[in-house]
Amino acid sequence: MRLRNKPWAKEKLASYPQYVIDNPVEHKGNWNQLFGNDNPIHIEVGTGKGRFVTEMAKAHPDINYIGIEIYESVIVSALDRVVEAEIPNIKLLNQNAVNLRDFFEKGEVDRVYLNFSDPWPKVRHEKRRLTYKTFLKMYEDILVDDGEIHFKTDNRGLFEYSLRSFSEYGLLLTFVSLDLHKSDYEGNIMTEYEEKFSEMGHPIYRSEVRYQKK
Amino acid sequence: MRLRNKPWAKEKLASYPQYVIDNPVEHKGNWNQLFGNDNPIHIEVGTGKGRFVTEMAKAHPDINYIGIEIYESVIVSALDRVVEAEIPNIKLLNQNAVNLRDFFEKGEVDRVYLNFSDPWPKVRHEKRRLTYKTFLKMYEDILVDDGEIHFKTDNRGLFEYSLRSFSEYGLLLTFVSLDLHKSDYEGNIMTEYEEKFSEMGHPIYRSEVRYQKK
Ligand SMILES: C[S@@+](CC[C@H](N)C(=O)[O-])C[C@H]1O[C@@H](n2cnc3c(N)ncnc32)[C@H](O)[C@@H]1O
Ligand SMILES: C[S@@+](CC[C@H](N)C(=O)[O-])C[C@H]1O[C@@H](n2cnc3c(N)ncnc32)[C@H](O)[C@@H]1O
Repeated sequence: MRLRNKPWAKEKLASYPQYVIDNPVEHKGNWNQLFGNDNPIHIEVGTGKGRFVTEMAKAHPDINYIGIEIYESVIVSALDRVVEAEIPNIKLLNQNAVNLRDFFEKGEVDRVYLNFSDPWPKVRHEKRRLTYKTFLKMYEDILVDDGEIHFKTDNRGLFEYSLRSFSEYGLLLTFVSLDLHKSDYEGNIMTEYEEKFSEMGHPIYRSEVRYQKK
Repeated sequence: MRLRNKPWAKEKLASYPQYVIDNPVEHKGNWNQLFGNDNPIHIEVGTGKGRFVTEMAKAHPDINYIGIEIYESVIVSALDRVVEAEIPNIKLLNQNAVNLRDFFEKGEVDRVYLNFSDPWPKVRHEKRRLTYKTFLKMYEDILVDDGEIHFKTDNRGLFEYSLRSFSEYGLLLTFVSLDLHKSDYEGNIMTEYEEKFSEMGHPIYRSEVRYQKK
């Protein structure tokens, strides 16, 4: 993610408290209250500029979405989309996703989306990949019992690694496409990275895995 | 597999009883005796013209290989390779692999190779795919407890299906490559189909899965 210095970003995020939740720790266990309904909650880790999570929220008004992105200069673009379309079923967190357990109660989240996560190709950086076992444990600790991870990427190495990591963790693979844009999968919403890398001719890999009773 | 009528094939296969085992049922539980050593046994289901299994046998003299192919007009080409190179650690079975349980005792086989298996793309033919759950059960019934299946194909639909089928069966995915010829995997031996389809530009998919104690 190329970062532009945007000194005004912090202030802008703070001026939309109905969309950008500044103190997620205080809402742990009460997100449905904040959304004002009992709809399922789907979160995206590493939301970037937010095309995916905002388009999903528009397409699925009966799901509540939370986009989590560590860089304020990036998530501010997601905020622009939310403000522009006045999307009611979305919140944005300008947070480091390693702290998800502080924000959500076990069972409070129904699905985790990972889109084009940083690949961390070096073996010594394995622990930073968002599909490393410690992250799979973290998602388990906030998801419902049969919660799901939906993951897509153009990065072959990361996808291969993730399939192995999911299997080793005991997750059930319920969907896999090795060339999403040539498949008959319907309702795909492209992310910013997806558009860029598919235009370069990369196949897009996509999987869904489900946690199982132990 | 395009079949040429080869009326002489049957006779030729019969004239090399040291390589082509006519009555595999009689050797059930005694394959090591037939090979004359206690080395591990690896089988290939759908051997075709036999390049893979014969090259593997030459490269790994401390493993015993058994190639299984239903069509005599095809397996006769594998026999030519074995005879030509006088390979000692290989046997060929001109048999239907659905009968593997009749040929092998539980624990007698260490590894199953599936290379470019027929894809059977129609949903109603799912049961014929060699990675359908009834086949996974059959392999389990002849493999050692931590036995493995090594599978490669260029067929995206079959590979996606197989990854799901392996996961659902509880097999552990220990290796996966989504573009074998561009990976750093070493020691690959190309099959006849692999050469043909990779020349056409298809990526080659490859996986290794392992049975786990239940
Ligand atoms: C490669 S970008 C992909 C962005 C977007 N999902 C897409 O597909 O276009 C990865 C994003 O994840 C964010 N990210 C990485 N680690 C994070 C973490 N621990 N917490 C929150 N966001 C993170 C990065 O800042 C970056 O914006
Ligand atoms: C697509 S070809 C691949 C041949 C070879 N493995 C390769 O990669 O070049 C599949 C082969 O499997 C054989 N085969 C299919 N079903 C079989 C069965 N039930 N038992 C034995 N052979 C089978 C076919 O006759 C054919 O030769």
